[in-house]
Amino acid sequence: MVPETLRELLASARSLLLTSHANPDGDAIGSELGLARALTALGKRAVIWNFHPAPTLYRALPGHEGIHVGGQPPPGFPSAFDAAVVLECPSLERTGLAERLRELPLVNIDHHLGNEAYGAVNWVEPRAPAVGVMVAELAGEIGAPIDEATADCLLLALVTDTGGFRFSNADPAAFRAAARLIELGARTETVSRWLYESQPEGAVRLLGEMLATLRRHADGRIASVHLDAAMFARAGAGAGDSEGLIDVPRSIAGVDAVALFRELAAARWKISLRSRGNVDVERVARDFGGGGHRNAAGCLFEGALESARETFVGALARALELADGD
Amino acid sequence: MVPETLRELLASARSLLLTSHANPDGDAIGSELGLARALTALGKRAVIWNFHPAPTLYRALPGHEGIHVGGQPPPGFPSAFDAAVVLECPSLERTGLAERLRELPLVNIDHHLGNEAYGAVNWVEPRAPAVGVMVAELAGEIGAPIDEATADCLLLALVTDTGGFRFSNADPAAFRAAARLIELGARTETVSRWLYESQPEGAVRLLGEMLATLRRHADGRIASVHLDAAMFARAGAGAGDSEGLIDVPRSIAGVDAVALFRELAAARWKISLRSRGNVDVERVARDFGGGGHRNAAGCLFEGALESARETFVGALARALELADGD
Repeated sequence: MVPETLRELLASARSLLLTSHANPDGDAIGSELGLARALTALGKRAVIWNFHPAPTLYRALPGHEGIHVGGQPPPGFPSAFDAAVVLECPSLERTGLAERLRELPLVNIDHHLGNEAYGAVNWVEPRAPAVGVMVAELAGEIGAPIDEATADCLLLALVTDTGGFRFSNADPAAFRAAARLIELGARTETVSRWLYESQPEGAVRLLGEMLATLRRHADGRIASVHLDAAMFARAGAGAGDSEGLIDVPRSIAGVDAVALFRELAAARWKISLRSRGNVDVERVARDFGGGGHRNAAGCLFEGALESARETFVGALARALELADGD
Repeated sequence: MVPETLRELLASARSLLLTSHANPDGDAIGSELGLARALTALGKRAVIWNFHPAPTLYRALPGHEGIHVGGQPPPGFPSAFDAAVVLECPSLERTGLAERLRELPLVNIDHHLGNEAYGAVNWVEPRAPAVGVMVAELAGEIGAPIDEATADCLLLALVTDTGGFRFSNADPAAFRAAARLIELGARTETVSRWLYESQPEGAVRLLGEMLATLRRHADGRIASVHLDAAMFARAGAGAGDSEGLIDVPRSIAGVDAVALFRELAAARWKISLRSRGNVDVERVARDFGGGGHRNAAGCLFEGALESARETFVGALARALELADGD
């Protein structure tokens, strides 16, 4: 249910800043672009400001070229904006822009279980399969028209956050939301082409590099892989090109949890964790200051690769034990 | 709409033979197993007879072990059966069992546009995204209970025939059918695990080996990759583990044709060709004694790898020129 305060705020606002978490994923980008288009259709101004650029995969989305990227705010900030809408982000810090965003009234629209309710207005629906679905509902409630391109953005958000309707959050509500978005004009084939037939060569080469590092642990139930700077260089890949690669080791029979270690700088790693069933990787990530969902979470780690591997393989082994004990 | 004649036939029948096309796919196997379970739950006897065994991927489905396979009919055929239900098969010949099946009254349940209406009773719905969805509707109409495992089989049918909800037949009706099957007990995660999370480690490692050989030709429009015996050995992979790997280079933006060279023996190569749109690789394969479809074909080649690459990259470049001229 869209809170009354949110409807009122959006009704009176004329200019909105939209943002999401650093290293934005498909639900972040799709929800931002979808909401921006819906607000623009209502005659409002909407500017997207993200700390990191979108993964290459999502750069075909309509409006992507207008996203303002980096640590410096867009022109006119903050006075030109009535409020900042933070989408798909459990804590303000994870935007990478927290300090500046606090200069504006904050609206928090999210579906993460551990959302910190950091907004002046908070709408958190842990059961929503994707924030893109919440944006579709919100657009309906405030009378904002959804055209084909807007519906494409929101369907992409839903498709990516349900792992292409493969994850446990692909529930009846998720499938019915997809049906409604298609009826609003979303094109399954367009979204499929963006997601599955537009891979940068660097991302495909990077997958090859990553698979060469595959190790199994805990009787094979844990898989670990890594990506260091040399591998990115050899593959001709950029930071966004590692999006989704972790799903490949996860597809191996018998693997219940995966850790991907991605080098951000010397001795600084972005850890991505994935799991099956009741193996809770959100808890693992949270212990290291990160977050996410039960089956998909992430955090940062400082240290050598071998130290990261030992730490997270150990933590995943304990998560497996906890899940086995359930 | 389920025809009245079909409802009547199933109401009076006590023992049914179920079959589908040769080289059965997910919709064939899922529909057969789902309908067999639904009929059994009504107290009827249902035996599945297929000409070919199911692909490994589908062997985890409940009831798979009971499928009768091969050219010889199951015990008691034909007298022990009241009718044969042919599922997801446009012509009786494509069952591979046509001659024997004609000994029984035939029921034809299908969604192929060109279905030949070869049954005594025919129910053909070209707009159904999968025959599995028709089976769910039929079960409802004849009062057959659908339990979790039956719903899993029918959801698998739907997922495979819509390419994981990526093809153009993934329309609102397909998504709503998925929602209903999940409400009947189908488990997205179970079906996903069968389909996407049961990769042999060797296949995943082989993918990494293959991607390390990626080359682009003809301004990047052609991609070539190879797999030699040493790569299979390093990956711990078997012959079946290269199935589907060619789809990965095909997913690269700007690639219109792909050649995969797989070493069968010294200086003996299996060539797999894939293309997009009107680039005809069947013609290329045919020139070398092979065959296939316009966008997926294969043939054999004797000689050195470099010679194979030169030959087929050249042939694909000509196929691109022909397609450009269309």
